[in-house]
Amino acid sequence: MNLIYRDGSENFYMRKEVEGNQITVCVTNLKSLWRSRMTQDDILGLFRRQNPLLQAKSEWIMTYVHSCLDSKESSTCVKVDDTNKTLSLNLVNQASEVKVKLHLILHIQDDQEFFREVTNPLVAVVIQLMDQRSKLLALVKSKDLELREYKLEGAEITRKNVETSDVMEKEFLNESLFRIPGQDSDQPTLHGAESESRPFTNIC
Amino acid sequence: MNLIYRDGSENFYMRKEVEGNQITVCVTNLKSLWRSRMTQDDILGLFRRQNPLLQAKSEWIMTYVHSCLDSKESSTCVKVDDTNKTLSLNLVNQASEVKVKLHLILHIQDDQEFFREVTNPLVAVVIQLMDQRSKLLALVKSKDLELREYKLEGAEITRKNVETSDVMEKEFLNESLFRIPGQDSDQPTLHGAESESRPFTNIC
Repeated sequence: MNLIYRDGSENFYMRKEVEGNQITVCVTNLKSLWRSRMTQDDILGLFRRQNPLLQAKSEWIMTYVHSCLDSKESSTCVKVDDTNKTLSLNLVNQASEVKVKLHLILHIQDDQEFFREVTNPLVAVVIQLMDQRSKLLALVKSKDLELREYKLEGAEITRKNVETSDVMEKEFLNESLFRIPGQDSDQPTLHGAESESRPFTNIC
Repeated sequence: MNLIYRDGSENFYMRKEVEGNQITVCVTNLKSLWRSRMTQDDILGLFRRQNPLLQAKSEWIMTYVHSCLDSKESSTCVKVDDTNKTLSLNLVNQASEVKVKLHLILHIQDDQEFFREVTNPLVAVVIQLMDQRSKLLALVKSKDLELREYKLEGAEITRKNVETSDVMEKEFLNESLFRIPGQDSDQPTLHGAESESRPFTNIC
């Protein structure tokens, strides 16, 4: 999912999925999930109704739609209705020579879908990152062992500026922690996971 | 949040928060969040109604309740009602000599609270782990540079079994990735974030 729009402190992320003739667009603000699932014919019909003066072949339209949904140069505007039931997505591809509209309506999904599309992939990423962290800590440890061996055998290097010091796992983990709101006060935590200064541009 | 109960493939996590005289208990299955906020007096009243034959001082009861909520030796049973509105939490501390009941009813929370208690801390953990990964990769790189320096200056070690090979960041990241369901097929992904074989015992 990629960051597509920011409304105050709220960030919206989008993912496009293509399966055969079907395109699925998901948008989340990490609280709710909205989705639209369309066939190529649905999209072509929608596009022609929204741009009646534009004469274009189906291939051109589909390329344009995909570029809008993929491009980081798209100017995207997101609006959620008052009941939270629908999300209106307005896409304009700035890179294109012709300024055409693409307006999609996405519908709210239930908790099960939010879990499938947002929470579960997030948990998967956490597991993956924790696994990578263990592997990297083991690598650092093995390199420190090799370096100690050189020193024990009396070797020295001329370029002192490349010398490193032993990494202590516990110290490293303590020092590299931020503060997470809502945790016990004696636990290292992290401020502003979704703060203004540190937007999360790519999730799971 | 700690894993307290598994119902088939569904895992339930609990967090206890104490603020002054108030105890908050949150339970999530990563799809919904249920919460109960009680004062010490509420808990004492509840406990005495549920265990009418037990004569115990307030201090003993509160110690028992906290041990139930904290202990990994608690035998916890979780049941969600058909409408998903309430979650019934039955705790029995197996370590205690006296077998007493503690039955709490937690109420469903809205998307905003689920975000505050589950999704946002998860995102925070991802940011933190990504930051640690960058730092560890930089450390490994600097140690490889130091090791190359020893070798360039002709040093050798006797214990060949402690020798390591250079770590290539790109290769390391590719090799250590799993597969995440719902991602593009050419992207490394992870199977079973919440699978039977790999339960996540501690989240955010």
